Amino acid sequence: MKKYEEMSREELLELKKELDKEFEDVKALGLSLDMSRGKPSAEQLDISMAMMDVLHGNADLKCETGVDCRNYGVIDGIPEAKRLLGAMSEVDPEEIIIYGNSSLNVMFDSIARSMTHGVMGHTPWCKLDKVKFLCPVPGYDRHFKITEFFGIEMINVPMSPTGPDMDMVERLVAEDDAIKGIWCVPKYSNPQGYTYSQETVERFARLKPAAPDFRIYWDNAYSIHHLYKDKQDFLVEILGECMRAGNPDLVYKFTSTSKVSFPGSGIAAVAASPANLEDFRSYMRIQTIGHDKLNQLRHVRFFKDLQGLHDHMHKHADLIRPKFELVLNTLDTEIGDLGIGTWTRPHGGYFISFDSLDGCAKRIVALAKEAGVVMTEAGATYPYGKDPHDSNIRIAPTYPSLDELGKAVQVFVLCVKKASVEKLLGR
Amino acid sequence: MKKYEEMSREELLELKKELDKEFEDVKALGLSLDMSRGKPSAEQLDISMAMMDVLHGNADLKCETGVDCRNYGVIDGIPEAKRLLGAMSEVDPEEIIIYGNSSLNVMFDSIARSMTHGVMGHTPWCKLDKVKFLCPVPGYDRHFKITEFFGIEMINVPMSPTGPDMDMVERLVAEDDAIKGIWCVPKYSNPQGYTYSQETVERFARLKPAAPDFRIYWDNAYSIHHLYKDKQDFLVEILGECMRAGNPDLVYKFTSTSKVSFPGSGIAAVAASPANLEDFRSYMRIQTIGHDKLNQLRHVRFFKDLQGLHDHMHKHADLIRPKFELVLNTLDTEIGDLGIGTWTRPHGGYFISFDSLDGCAKRIVALAKEAGVVMTEAGATYPYGKDPHDSNIRIAPTYPSLDELGKAVQVFVLCVKKASVEKLLGR
Repeated sequence: MKKYEEMSREELLELKKELDKEFEDVKALGLSLDMSRGKPSAEQLDISMAMMDVLHGNADLKCETGVDCRNYGVIDGIPEAKRLLGAMSEVDPEEIIIYGNSSLNVMFDSIARSMTHGVMGHTPWCKLDKVKFLCPVPGYDRHFKITEFFGIEMINVPMSPTGPDMDMVERLVAEDDAIKGIWCVPKYSNPQGYTYSQETVERFARLKPAAPDFRIYWDNAYSIHHLYKDKQDFLVEILGECMRAGNPDLVYKFTSTSKVSFPGSGIAAVAASPANLEDFRSYMRIQTIGHDKLNQLRHVRFFKDLQGLHDHMHKHADLIRPKFELVLNTLDTEIGDLGIGTWTRPHGGYFISFDSLDGCAKRIVALAKEAGVVMTEAGATYPYGKDPHDSNIRIAPTYPSLDELGKAVQVFVLCVKKASVEKLLGR
Repeated sequence: MKKYEEMSREELLELKKELDKEFEDVKALGLSLDMSRGKPSAEQLDISMAMMDVLHGNADLKCETGVDCRNYGVIDGIPEAKRLLGAMSEVDPEEIIIYGNSSLNVMFDSIARSMTHGVMGHTPWCKLDKVKFLCPVPGYDRHFKITEFFGIEMINVPMSPTGPDMDMVERLVAEDDAIKGIWCVPKYSNPQGYTYSQETVERFARLKPAAPDFRIYWDNAYSIHHLYKDKQDFLVEILGECMRAGNPDLVYKFTSTSKVSFPGSGIAAVAASPANLEDFRSYMRIQTIGHDKLNQLRHVRFFKDLQGLHDHMHKHADLIRPKFELVLNTLDTEIGDLGIGTWTRPHGGYFISFDSLDGCAKRIVALAKEAGVVMTEAGATYPYGKDPHDSNIRIAPTYPSLDELGKAVQVFVLCVKKASVEKLLGR
């Protein structure tokens, strides 16, 4: 089919008529579908159900050092949980702290701690006139919400398939000591599914920030979340890279089992240098008597080791791979040649990133909603919800059934076509 | 036996010789006992073991509104958990938010939130020159550590069997708008086991603080933790009392199941006015995607309702009552007539508060340690660890076995005698 931009006004008007009709027909179906949520499906949760049985009423609930996991104690995680999440994070058990059910909460608390107490003895950020964060865009809305909540000024840094624009990152952090951090989802990024290249990670580890309390917030949320056995992205382990570069304190590395076991009932962890971990612990020791050790034990006894985690992730992959492929095939078939959108083809993670013609994303999401399909809000992938091109839309294929997803993505491409024609006709 | 202070110098010297000998004999036993920890014993944890089986691999893990508790969602608690902890807190389900595993963590976060964002739109505390908290003393060390950590100045307020000195509380909060809060353990207080009287609660609800962002931190940690069926303290419900007094926003009411089910693996909650709860939620919505709903469901399915909680607490009481009585009987028998100490006789909670002669507490705790018995650090029950009289010692009878406890308390009374004689002899 002809590219939309090569069509004459008459052709576009004719096309618009067809699409409007099609859109009215779809609306009449009264659909109620959702491609907005980066949530596992019920079938994915089912594969972890045996985890409910590993800590039964007659089980020995002591961890390997003999501590009764039912009682108080052990502030930073039982040894076997440190070993499991250490392996998942590619660090040694002593380089990790185990937290509660949410790595987002740990990131939030890290910012909160930096605001009130500063980073490793440096001035608390709440005493500074200005604090800034770099935000690779498009990115994860919940990251941006945290820095926005604390009044931290966010600076957009463009993403590419190899990671953030490192020339820009290097220049900005070197010249402005108000820049205290950068949000990164380095593997199977949210929303593109990009994985930072070896060069990108090496340049991160060698950053020379003007601010001594600058930290890389390395949210490795999808470290083992591959879609394929034969096509897997590889991410250089950054903590070791920072150590080798003589910058051991430069990075906080977050992970969790939220999309491995049960979202909301998983365990989270931070890997960092000894000095950073002590900074985290100094806060934790006042904040809590300890996290849920029974849930730590439950995870270790269920997954056993890294191989157990990988085996489990293959089951997830088998369930979600067809969903990603359905979306990608539909996009290819329906609008692949029309010049009205581009999209990513991730090898893992939870999202596909779609870019429409400039100025169309809000309209597409609004049209989809009108037709009964909820998409992630346009703009959500940018700080302050402001996509300067109004073009990025995050597609989350995992939660709906294949059947629902098929319907939803058909509605989506129709809305893309309709919004694009409207745009080219000047509305 | 004669009171120590009525003894002649010769009698005291003779007594000292005996006690020194006895102390050396005890030391030779090489004991290793602990009366410091407010932890349930293993036997107490055993009574909750069936909780491990309620969410099995074939269980339906939806809450009553049909939400799959295994997945993301439901920021402030599943309805049945709100109902259960609402009943435990004597408030309606809509007056409560369910949190993670630690009410201490919620208190910490409440202070952190007030520092960075202020209370319900008021100036963030980190922007103020001075923030102060009232601290009924002796009190809970972990409360005081939180306010100390945030650089909040703590003012001691004397406790009595009916609660804090309310004349002092009323006067201070009315005249000083830097006073932003007060730490309270209103029922079976830590460490005395006192319960605030009706008059005290009514005066709290009618406080007229100069600071509009003053809040009562009402840590009702031991609300259903009775030792006896026939001797139970009654605490007036403060949230309703505040509402009736026209001060609905005055109080944050905290609770948790830490010493009901499993410490570290329980669920926590806050009850407060709608405006306060919205203030909490505005923070939570950024901080986390939600707490562990499976653990909420596990608690509800195990305890069912308030009666289930009470039945369960009777089992705890049956296990710890003999321990409290053993300590009290030993104190009565061994030093009841000697005028060298006073102690409380709680009807619930986890502690007995002991007051030695002035200037003896540190020495008693040091002697006990020398003889192989760990006590809570002297001074821990006061802000900054400074007991102005050096007299208060917190006794925690629950964790050791009856046999160990019997030995430990014998060592303790010996140390009290020895330290008291030394004191009266001027060392």
